[in-house]
Parts: sequence; C-alpha cells; structure tokens
Amino acid sequence: MGKDSLRCLFEPESVAVVGASEDPEKFGYHIMRNLIDMEFRGKIYPVNRKRDSVLGFKCYPDVASIPENIDNVTIIVPAQYVPQILKESAEKNVKAAVICTSGFKEAGEEGIQLEKDILKIAGSAGIRIAGPNTTGILNVFNGYTSVFVKITKPRKGKVSIISQTGMFASVLLEHILSTQKYGLSKVAGLGNKSDLDDSDILEYLEADQETQVIGIYAEGINNGRRFLEITKKVSKKKPILILKSARSKSGGDAALTHTGSLMVRDEIFEALCKTTGIIRVSDIEELLDLIKAFAFLPPTKGNRIGVIAYTGAGCVMSADAIEHYGMQIANLTKETMEKLTSKAPGFGIVRNPLDAELVRQGMGNAEESLVFALESFFEDPNVDMVSLVIVGLTKESKIWDVDIKKVFSNLKNRFPDKPLVVSTLASQEVIDEYRMILENLGIPTYPSLFRNIRALNALQKYYSRFPRT
Amino acid sequence: MGKDSLRCLFEPESVAVVGASEDPEKFGYHIMRNLIDMEFRGKIYPVNRKRDSVLGFKCYPDVASIPENIDNVTIIVPAQYVPQILKESAEKNVKAAVICTSGFKEAGEEGIQLEKDILKIAGSAGIRIAGPNTTGILNVFNGYTSVFVKITKPRKGKVSIISQTGMFASVLLEHILSTQKYGLSKVAGLGNKSDLDDSDILEYLEADQETQVIGIYAEGINNGRRFLEITKKVSKKKPILILKSARSKSGGDAALTHTGSLMVRDEIFEALCKTTGIIRVSDIEELLDLIKAFAFLPPTKGNRIGVIAYTGAGCVMSADAIEHYGMQIANLTKETMEKLTSKAPGFGIVRNPLDAELVRQGMGNAEESLVFALESFFEDPNVDMVSLVIVGLTKESKIWDVDIKKVFSNLKNRFPDKPLVVSTLASQEVIDEYRMILENLGIPTYPSLFRNIRALNALQKYYSRFPRT
Repeated sequence: MGKDSLRCLFEPESVAVVGASEDPEKFGYHIMRNLIDMEFRGKIYPVNRKRDSVLGFKCYPDVASIPENIDNVTIIVPAQYVPQILKESAEKNVKAAVICTSGFKEAGEEGIQLEKDILKIAGSAGIRIAGPNTTGILNVFNGYTSVFVKITKPRKGKVSIISQTGMFASVLLEHILSTQKYGLSKVAGLGNKSDLDDSDILEYLEADQETQVIGIYAEGINNGRRFLEITKKVSKKKPILILKSARSKSGGDAALTHTGSLMVRDEIFEALCKTTGIIRVSDIEELLDLIKAFAFLPPTKGNRIGVIAYTGAGCVMSADAIEHYGMQIANLTKETMEKLTSKAPGFGIVRNPLDAELVRQGMGNAEESLVFALESFFEDPNVDMVSLVIVGLTKESKIWDVDIKKVFSNLKNRFPDKPLVVSTLASQEVIDEYRMILENLGIPTYPSLFRNIRALNALQKYYSRFPRT
Repeated sequence: MGKDSLRCLFEPESVAVVGASEDPEKFGYHIMRNLIDMEFRGKIYPVNRKRDSVLGFKCYPDVASIPENIDNVTIIVPAQYVPQILKESAEKNVKAAVICTSGFKEAGEEGIQLEKDILKIAGSAGIRIAGPNTTGILNVFNGYTSVFVKITKPRKGKVSIISQTGMFASVLLEHILSTQKYGLSKVAGLGNKSDLDDSDILEYLEADQETQVIGIYAEGINNGRRFLEITKKVSKKKPILILKSARSKSGGDAALTHTGSLMVRDEIFEALCKTTGIIRVSDIEELLDLIKAFAFLPPTKGNRIGVIAYTGAGCVMSADAIEHYGMQIANLTKETMEKLTSKAPGFGIVRNPLDAELVRQGMGNAEESLVFALESFFEDPNVDMVSLVIVGLTKESKIWDVDIKKVFSNLKNRFPDKPLVVSTLASQEVIDEYRMILENLGIPTYPSLFRNIRALNALQKYYSRFPRT
C-alpha cells in the first residue's frame, strides 16, 4: 500500500493539476509549464472552473468530472478547497496528493484544524500526502513535478534530494541545476510533513534504481526511532548526506517558528549519525561538495592520498589538509620514486606531494609531463586516491598548455577505479573552463585544495565503513 | 636608508629591466609588456646585449651603459650574470634589486654560494634585494612591476599582499584580479627571502597611505622576534590576515624542500597571532573572504548581528552559524519589533533572524518590503551588523523583483557605518549578477550564509581589540 502510494507520488501515470492556469503570474501556470517542459510521460488533467482548456490540455471544472481514475492530484488552490478536492480524489482512486497550498499548520488555529481535517479524509481514502505548504515533488526520469516556480530543465542523474522546506528545496534545486554537472533523480520538498516524512521518502529511494546518492536538508526529525532504523538500512546501500540545521539554541528557536520543528539535541543527532553511518555536513557548500564527490567518484579502497600540485605552495597546503583530516599521505613505491626522479634530474626533490613543475621542467613538454605524473600516481598500488592542484593564470597564459579533455578522458578510461579530484587556482575564466571540461567527464572539481581533501575524506569514511566488494 | 630602498623597490622613478625582450616566449618580454600596460610612471631602461630597442624603448647592452642613475634594477637573466649586474648597479646608485631569476639557494651547493655572493655585493653597495627566485613586486598605483607572466590589468585599491612564493603570488594575484572587485595596492612575492622578508615589507606597508589591509601567505617566518614586534605594531593600524601553511608535520616536510623554510611549531605561531592580533586563516578561500570583508566594510561597533533571510531555512542556518562563531543574535528594540509586526500582520512571527517573506507578503511590494526590512534593521541601535540572505531562482523568476543597484546604493549612502554582507542562493546567473552589482557598490558577497557570518566574526574580533574612534 505504502509502496503503491509512493510510486503514485513520484511516478504517476496520470495527474490532476488543481489550480492549473494560463496566467504566468499564477503558480498553477508554472506547474503546467514545468510538466510540459519536462515532457511528463503521463496524462495531465488540468482542473479549473473557469476554463475549458489550459495550455492545450482539456480542462475540468473539478476532480469529480475527470472521466478516468488518476494516480496523483497536485493542488495549488486556497486551503479551504482542499478537503473537497481530496474527497473527490478518493472517488478517482487517487493514491498520492501533493498539496502545495499553504495556510495549514504553519498559519495558526484554523490552519491546524484544516490540516487535521485533510489528514482524516486522506487517511480513510488511503491517500498519502506530501505537504501541505511545499513545492513538492520532482522526478527527472518521468518528468513529473509539482514545482510551481520556473526551473531550469534538469539533467538525469543518480542524486536525489529531500528537503524539509519547499522554498529552500526549489532554490537549492535551481542552484544545483545551474551549477552542477551531475544529474538528479528525485527531489522531495516535504513542507509541513503532515503525513509523508523523510523516512517514507528514504524507504522509497532505497528501492529506487535511479537513486544512488541521497542529500537531505532537515530542521527537525519527525519520528527519531523510525528515522534511525531506516537510515541504518539505507545508508549501507546508498550514501546519505545530511545538513541538519537548528543545531544551536537560537537555530532551534528559529526552526520552531519556521517549520514547527521541535529541536533535536545536537549530541543525540550526532550519535544517530555515528550509529547509522549517515554523513553530516555543516553547510550548503559542504553538502553540494560531498554530493558531487559521491555522485562522480568510484568507491575508494583506502585513505592514502597522492597529491600532484603545480607550485610548491599547493604541496605544502595539501599536506596540511591531509593531516588535518587524519588521512594518509601515500608512501610512493620505490618504482614510482625512481620513475619520477629519472624524469626530473637535478630539478629538486621528487616526493608526495609532488611539485609537478619539477617533472614539467625535466621533461620539457607540459602535456606529456602531466600525463606521466598522473599515470605514475594512478599506477602506484600505494596510492588510493589522487588530488590534483592546477594553477593556471589567464586564458592566454596558462602555465601549462594541455589538451585537458583528451588527457583526462584517457585517464578516466584507463583508471576508472581510483578517485580523482581537481582544484584550480587561476583567473575565473580558466577555472570555469576547466571545471566545465572535467565535470562533464565526471571528475569533481573544487574551488580549493582544502575542499579536495575534505571530499576525499568523506568518501573514505563512508567506504571504509561500508566497503563495496 | 631602509626606507629609501623600499621606496625604490615599490615606487621607483627609474627601472633597468635586465633581460628585456621582444620575444613573447621570454619572461623578459612580459615584464616590459606589463610595465607598458600598467602605464608605469617612471623611466624604463631595457638591458639586452643583442638589441638597440625593446618595445619602443632604447635598449642598453649592460647596466653600466645606462647614462643616468637608476632606482631599481629588475633582473630576469640566468643566475651566473647576476653578480656582475649588481656590481654595475652599485655604480648607478641603485637602491633596490628584484631578482626574478632562479638557480640560487633552492638549487643546491652552487646556488647557495651564488646567493651568498650576491648578498655580499648588494650589502656593501646598500642595495636591498627582493628574491631571488620570485615574480617579485607589483605597485598598482605607479604601475611598477617585475611580474613576468601576463596578468589582468589591476584595479587600484587598499589591499596589499605579501607572499612567500612567487608563483603562488602571481597566480593568487591573477585570481584576485579576475574575481575580486576590491582593488590592490602593493604585491610582494619574496621568493628565497635572501634579504628582504615579510617584516621589511610590513614596515613599508605600515607607512604606506595606499595600503589599509594586508594579506600574507607564508610557509616560514625568518626572524620570529622581529616579525612579532613588527606585526604587533602594524596590526593595530591595519588588519593583517595571514595564511600560514606548513602547520602539520607533513606540511613542514613539504615546505622544507619547497622554500627551505624551517617549520615553526604551530602552537607557537598560534600564540604569536593571539599576542599581536593578526588574524590567522586556514585556507585560500578564507583568506580572500576576509580580505574582502576588511577591504569593503567599516569598523563594527559590536557583535550583535541582525539577519534578514528569504526563506525560513536561511534564518535557522544563520542562527546556527552565529552561535557557532560565538556572536550574538541582536535583540531588536521594541520599536523595531512593532514596526515590523505592523507590516506583516498575521503572516507569522516577526523576529531576528527575520524571514523577509513575511514582510513581503504583508506589504505586497518586493522592493518596498526589502527596503523597509533593511532600514528597520539598520536604524535599530541594537543591531551592529547585518547579514542578508537572498534567494532568487533563475533570471526570469527572481522571487523578488527589485532594483538591487538603487536599493543598495541608497542604503550604503544612508548607513555607511554599519557593516552589511550578502549571500545569494539561486541560479549561477543570478548569483553572478548580484555579486557584480553589490561588490561594485562595495558590499561584500559570499557564496554561503555561513561565510557571511565568518566574515562578520573576523571583523568583530579585530575591531573589538583595536577599536577605531
């Protein structure tokens, strides 16, 4: 039953959009627009008393008038109409309702009663509710969405996101869509969590073949015991990254008036993360950094990092960062040391972290020397992961003239099983160009070498606990 | 004497460029090109045996042939020629030499001897040396530079940078030039620090009217006691931000082979920072974040932060961040509370952090409500600093339609004495647009609300220790 409802929530074959509109000022327009732009694969039934059609789809005055059964009703009309819509939805065998409408629990006495009413109606009809007071659901694979603000067309990928607050979910979503090269699978903004909560969605995502990495933003946790049991189970199979806010007294106060979340004592939540293996992050940048690492990188087999940096300063700071995170600086094999030394005679001391300038000066050719250094590190059995620190300058005066796309696509083909992260310090133009090329190849890039190591550290922590065979 | 030399180093009225070239593959070309592009105000004397002129300037076969005395000799020819050049420079009354050339202390026995030789020659002639083995000096105000890679034309500003390693200095420089809106004053890459070191440059920058904020990258400190005395003195007048690497055992090992720096025990350096009031940062991102804060923001009078965030999630996370840094969430006055509440009746609870959506919904107009919220916070005597968290989406669907430039230039004019920082979560396009507009107005923006608070925290720490009257 639960499964069925969640499939209707994320993978409906038919949707009624109650409040559909052709007026771009209305949220009901954007839901329709997004469904069309995302090429939703199921049937769309706009519902609006005042219209015969909406954006080319036959429009119905109410849910009751829709001639067939439907999987999912997506609601964006004022709160007082919602109970009636749910009653009619029950007659149409609806299994999932996304209630975007606000004016429920978060809006005082009357809203609290209204939320109770709709839960009762839905409960007896077997309808599961996402929301109310949320932007709701997005499934990149079948094109279903209840998101009511204009968004960039998503790319398919293996990352799913659960967010407590709808607005945050949709802004974070847009940020991801416009900046991140890994694609998305499912997004759930849960709003008031009147019915479905993080645990329900996690159970669905556990079984969802299209989801391999899960990111969560949460202010509160509804049912701690259930959340613990489910995350323990899911975390083994799929890495879960969580940004749990309201960790401080003041944050808790703010959350109370925001989503009505009761504060979880931070030590308790911390203990829960330890027990379950879910990975806690401290801000949005770290959340996105780690999602990218897990989305792009293969499992690591150990914690020994090889660093190749252009400039000695990059070597020094990388060594500091590795020690800061309690990781190991890989001890290169004798063979690797000899190989590297033979190519950089008399230019300085070859070691890990490797100042790649030494090899470049020794070999003369920028591209050859980079390939040589990378291959030496990737072939070394003592190196589990590689962090590359590139410096360039402007587009015209890149320090090394290298066909990045060729070099790194070859490298990825030859060594698909060793994680590689890259950071670039240069003019913004060079950084953006490298980032684009590398992330299109599935190689994560970060704005600083420190964040390179932070990402590798998270990878190592997860895969050392849940090794892949 | 010292003063004079340092003025000749940074503000020469005449420069000999030894190794000047018209071949774009040569570093000596780029030094000339940069001097021309930066419109260096002094006289330029290219020195090259093989040419009569370089890029339109009369060229001399050696320094001895230059018909006049010169302030500064900038050297980019192989190491073995440097002693003779310095001898001739002594005859020309040169006070400062920038030796970009490598092949000295960092290159083994012979280099070590050569470095001793040049120090002896320079010492008896009263010539101070920057380098060798560095990109050297940049003075944005008079256009002098020894930087030998192509760089973006710098903007004038009040930030000066000292970096141990030349390559890092020039790459960091290019990164700053291409991404940061605050301008620069002086940049010094010190290389081997054979003569001039951080302390010498700091003494010069202390007196330099064009420098108000100082950023340092250092792996080692030459003379700890002198550095302590000088930073203690300078730090009072001008904030000093320092990224001191080689903090770990492994980082220390890497630094030893990089710049030959002996490791400073990290607890000792930490204690030095506490004693002197210099602000230590842990990575390049933090260094740039804090330089920007001090470059743009007025001194703060206290640690009470007002937060205006679009989305409740922004409020919750901001409260967490403020508590994390040990800052205070400002207690709004009764007047402010009443004012805000009167504009957002029944939409939710008005407090600090303020969910700006409440006021927007209450007032209807996005721009008016933003101005109203900002003014209420800026007028409140209990608020020392403001962190604004904007969410937008795509360029077409900004959640609030506001003339950012107008709103914030008015605000800056009306309240020049209260620090304001802004972070935006949105599509990359919106983030870039807001960043550009706001930073052109001198308002720092950060990629995350967490970094907003980190910047305000640094500001507060510095100005609470060294209050401005």
